[in-house]
Amino acid sequence: MIIAMSIDATEEEIQHVIERVEECGFRAHVSRGAERVVIGAVGNNQRRHELEALRAAPGVEDVVPLAHPFKLVSLQFKRERTVVDVAGVRVGGSEAVVIAGPCSVESREQILQTAHAVRHAGAHMLRGGAYKPRTSPYDFQGLGIEALRLLAEARAQTGLPVVTEVMSTEDIDTVAEHADVLQVGARNMQNFPLLRRLAKTPRPVLLKRGPSATVKEWLLAAEYLLAGGNEHVILCERGIKTFETELRNTLDLAAVALAKELSHLPVIVDPSHGTGRRSLIAAASRAALAIGSDGLIVEVHPCPERALSDGQQSLDLAEFERMMRELTAPLPKLAPSFALAC
Amino acid sequence: MIIAMSIDATEEEIQHVIERVEECGFRAHVSRGAERVVIGAVGNNQRRHELEALRAAPGVEDVVPLAHPFKLVSLQFKRERTVVDVAGVRVGGSEAVVIAGPCSVESREQILQTAHAVRHAGAHMLRGGAYKPRTSPYDFQGLGIEALRLLAEARAQTGLPVVTEVMSTEDIDTVAEHADVLQVGARNMQNFPLLRRLAKTPRPVLLKRGPSATVKEWLLAAEYLLAGGNEHVILCERGIKTFETELRNTLDLAAVALAKELSHLPVIVDPSHGTGRRSLIAAASRAALAIGSDGLIVEVHPCPERALSDGQQSLDLAEFERMMRELTAPLPKLAPSFALAC
Amino acid sequence: MIIAMSIDATEEEIQHVIERVEECGFRAHVSRGAERVVIGAVGNNQRRHELEALRAAPGVEDVVPLAHPFKLVSLQFKRERTVVDVAGVRVGGSEAVVIAGPCSVESREQILQTAHAVRHAGAHMLRGGAYKPRTSPYDFQGLGIEALRLLAEARAQTGLPVVTEVMSTEDIDTVAEHADVLQVGARNMQNFPLLRRLAKTPRPVLLKRGPSATVKEWLLAAEYLLAGGNEHVILCERGIKTFETELRNTLDLAAVALAKELSHLPVIVDPSHGTGRRSLIAAASRAALAIGSDGLIVEVHPCPERALSDGQQSLDLAEFERMMRELTAPLPKLAPSFALAC
Amino acid sequence: MIIAMSIDATEEEIQHVIERVEECGFRAHVSRGAERVVIGAVGNNQRRHELEALRAAPGVEDVVPLAHPFKLVSLQFKRERTVVDVAGVRVGGSEAVVIAGPCSVESREQILQTAHAVRHAGAHMLRGGAYKPRTSPYDFQGLGIEALRLLAEARAQTGLPVVTEVMSTEDIDTVAEHADVLQVGARNMQNFPLLRRLAKTPRPVLLKRGPSATVKEWLLAAEYLLAGGNEHVILCERGIKTFETELRNTLDLAAVALAKELSHLPVIVDPSHGTGRRSLIAAASRAALAIGSDGLIVEVHPCPERALSDGQQSLDLAEFERMMRELTAPLPKLAPSFALAC
Repeated sequence: MIIAMSIDATEEEIQHVIERVEECGFRAHVSRGAERVVIGAVGNNQRRHELEALRAAPGVEDVVPLAHPFKLVSLQFKRERTVVDVAGVRVGGSEAVVIAGPCSVESREQILQTAHAVRHAGAHMLRGGAYKPRTSPYDFQGLGIEALRLLAEARAQTGLPVVTEVMSTEDIDTVAEHADVLQVGARNMQNFPLLRRLAKTPRPVLLKRGPSATVKEWLLAAEYLLAGGNEHVILCERGIKTFETELRNTLDLAAVALAKELSHLPVIVDPSHGTGRRSLIAAASRAALAIGSDGLIVEVHPCPERALSDGQQSLDLAEFERMMRELTAPLPKLAPSFALAC
Repeated sequence: MIIAMSIDATEEEIQHVIERVEECGFRAHVSRGAERVVIGAVGNNQRRHELEALRAAPGVEDVVPLAHPFKLVSLQFKRERTVVDVAGVRVGGSEAVVIAGPCSVESREQILQTAHAVRHAGAHMLRGGAYKPRTSPYDFQGLGIEALRLLAEARAQTGLPVVTEVMSTEDIDTVAEHADVLQVGARNMQNFPLLRRLAKTPRPVLLKRGPSATVKEWLLAAEYLLAGGNEHVILCERGIKTFETELRNTLDLAAVALAKELSHLPVIVDPSHGTGRRSLIAAASRAALAIGSDGLIVEVHPCPERALSDGQQSLDLAEFERMMRELTAPLPKLAPSFALAC
Repeated sequence: MIIAMSIDATEEEIQHVIERVEECGFRAHVSRGAERVVIGAVGNNQRRHELEALRAAPGVEDVVPLAHPFKLVSLQFKRERTVVDVAGVRVGGSEAVVIAGPCSVESREQILQTAHAVRHAGAHMLRGGAYKPRTSPYDFQGLGIEALRLLAEARAQTGLPVVTEVMSTEDIDTVAEHADVLQVGARNMQNFPLLRRLAKTPRPVLLKRGPSATVKEWLLAAEYLLAGGNEHVILCERGIKTFETELRNTLDLAAVALAKELSHLPVIVDPSHGTGRRSLIAAASRAALAIGSDGLIVEVHPCPERALSDGQQSLDLAEFERMMRELTAPLPKLAPSFALAC
Repeated sequence: MIIAMSIDATEEEIQHVIERVEECGFRAHVSRGAERVVIGAVGNNQRRHELEALRAAPGVEDVVPLAHPFKLVSLQFKRERTVVDVAGVRVGGSEAVVIAGPCSVESREQILQTAHAVRHAGAHMLRGGAYKPRTSPYDFQGLGIEALRLLAEARAQTGLPVVTEVMSTEDIDTVAEHADVLQVGARNMQNFPLLRRLAKTPRPVLLKRGPSATVKEWLLAAEYLLAGGNEHVILCERGIKTFETELRNTLDLAAVALAKELSHLPVIVDPSHGTGRRSLIAAASRAALAIGSDGLIVEVHPCPERALSDGQQSLDLAEFERMMRELTAPLPKLAPSFALAC
């Protein structure tokens, strides 16, 4: 932690900060420059937040943290990449996995038809919403427990492990009984009571990045899970909110590469929410794999124009099948090299 | 709802959309322009989300909603402005109210000292966090039930009604027992299970705007409360996330005026989170009142540089007292008019 | 400048950075912490950018600048606030000024009618676009030189100094001949050749903040003007681009207070572009004055619904007159104090 | 264009809007719904902006444009994809091209060494800045005409066509004399006088997306070039400004796919500015090709830590060589399919 004093800080103010730094159990390392004094707080990190409050001390211009605020999720802490095993499907290994299914479970026929089709096309897990977080109270809110039973039936028929969202601490046990992976939705990324309780389940957690969360905030949300005892965490980039209005979200693929540089956890991509536009999903999925994503979670519906949610960003069964066929096709060639030509 | 067909939509695709619109119980009003066909869906609004899925139908370029998606919070629905009565303090009337207190309740001495001081300076309610949502699991998480008891003691001594955050459905009853207003934090604005349960309490709810929520999303979150039965809702603007890094958030004061144009609910402003910078809070508070805010919620701490959270944006007791004295001082004069001069 | 080495930086890498720091003429001040080594570069600021490139050196995790990158615009550099005198109108003094007029000059009748009306209502300067930067090449691009002549005629009739935008270095001389203040539009805030040339005119410059410029970038753009020799600079906040779509821009009023804390230059506010919504302009203008703005620039048109640009955010003559009457009316009262009541 | 009347619009207000629509040469198509009246303006698009001003007419709630505002750049207008030929290098064909070189030309040795190295590694064009737009007036501003001569020498030695930025209308002729492609920097994307003059050169233009420009605004900037007579336009995505601070910009790869869906122009990607972080550039480049980019423009420097600009995001020669070798390597495999397994 670096404390930069303002140009006109008095000697008294400087001494006061030094005392506070030492009071918090750090060593104060003072640099006296031509223009200003800079104080480094050297030591362990336990009472870091008390140092941050020094922004309020007289004569302090800024307090700059240098260390990353997360630990257990850090690749510096654990050098070996985490592979999350979901009923035999390995997320974070050398091969990519695809999770597919409808935004919401709407009926027995819909979910079973979709499950068989995505399995046939090569998907590795089934997704489907039972409890839906909807911006408007008047929109379809999900079938709840009935949807969980249908998902379990789809799993029994296809063998596909099931991923579904849990929105409330009260639903965790029920959802964990029926599903293989518990998803934390983007709006709940910083729902800390939910994270603390999910840390105590034996189920893997799929943690979506919040629409306005920085990569660091995302990793700190994962830190809640690991610190609470659950190491089976899969991160999921699903687009962030920006000024661009033509697409529903801005898919931040570089964040995938960055998250994998900073953390040992596996990272997958949701190109459906990430773009909100059916025509871009296949291309975005290929880009996700190219930048190092460990997999994809894709919305698929037998009849998108009749979907009760997210129809505009759902692939139909044929489109998904085609996408899967072309997903790992070779990248385009480069133009002939000048080096050879000349 | 307007469905714009793409330029090269076929007659068959147009007919298909018309059929779907009518199937959903709307009348289809077809405009055939020089370039494209536009279909208006005329009728009530119940199955609106099914029309939105038509974005996935062949030949459709865009689906544009025209009506606002909220109802009960709308000023068009209820023409009279809502005044929320909190133990005799009226929020949303012709006079502005000020809620003040520390970010977190840290000790008996801290909260009692602050409560007396802010009451003396003219504050109308006391704030103080018992359960703290913190980005990092290693930061101070609040004193919980002990803090609630201390807040109740402070109320007993000062008469100030108490505002405190509730983070989890499981804590609602306990918090409602000790506090007068239940605050929904910015990160929980779209925690729908929490909103649905708060709709059933008799306590007023202070609903903070999410850091990346549009005004419409904010009003829809309030709609969850009103639709569930709780009409005592106070909206609170507390800054949004933007590219600007010099300040913690971007205080969106025009959103206050907009929210009051769209809704009958009272709106207050949190200049502490809204700017994150102590030196700007007094000026931002005056601007909030000038743009029509019904009040303020301000962080105050006896010794900000020792605060366990948000020290850099907390006023000390003297600063708060000064701010209150100058809060409604006259605006600066305009330069002399040319009209008079010439 | 602080150079934070990564946790696993080798001694060789640390030495290399120290050498580079000294090679650039700084003194290297090394702090060896429990976890990492931090190197402070102490000295003058001339070759700062060379230090920034050390982000690319092996073993370096981050390079953190501590000093503000601007000088001449800084309040630390010049302690006295700048007042820009525009033909007798003082911008930045203790009284606020109002600049009003149409987005574009459209006809002789339109500009003269508007000029007389805004002068009568109490405005201090006249605005009007001659060269219009338009997102689409098919939109109205302004009347050019003819508009400049009409503005000069309006000034002759009313005595109001004229503010108008200059978009190109080639137009500077012509515009400077007809106008009193040269406006740099938001899109041109970082048009450095334009800034360098405007630094050489004797005319005051109104520098709008770019829609995605941080306050620091804005001040650095002003620094181009002052460093080039023109000290008569008025800053203008006009809203920034955010995810919020209900309003055209997000008016960043706290940035006004921040700019005045960091710089001695006067700052005004454009509530017309800042909100894009007629109904919010009067309230936003009052808030601007409350937060410390030195003035306003407001779009006014005799018949907004027929305006060739920005009609939706232009006040008509009667609305402007009303706004001026109520601009500095008292702020709302606070509710009665508990301190008195108990 | 759709004009939505507000719920309480009077019949008189509705009639007034109908008259204005017809006065502008459109046919008014009126839909009377249960709640509100919606007026479609049917006809050609010439006086579109006059209709937009109807937002200011009494009783109007919103004006919603349906058609895209661009024409010549549109894929609906010209169905065949544009291939830009740069001295024999085809941009926009089936093969990807790579443009590489330093941010700034710093010396003869630096640019020649880089040119030979990137050619050897397989690059197709050379980039290098002669005129540098720098946020601070105190940063290195480029070698100007001397840099142009050095670039021409590098081309003569290597055969690589040269791409360099032009910042001012006054420099266009000189730059066009020495370079093969004229680059419009991100900050100048909406410098309309510059675009209008570049529309008259015979040289291809590389148009970078502005850091806060929507895809539509970017395409409208290109429309200025095509409408003015220059069809040789290459679009370049280089990251947008968002709340994320860990990376310099947020690389918006989905925008590449979207731009190619909306327009026939070729699109390339700048992963150097797009991420601002050396370690992510190779992965981001692969993702760019995967999502359909027609090529890349990459910063390469013989010694990034000594670069006078952008060192932290420049590859050194060996890194670039490695990146080129792996650029089109196969994507990772999918995990074994359940369909086969069961």
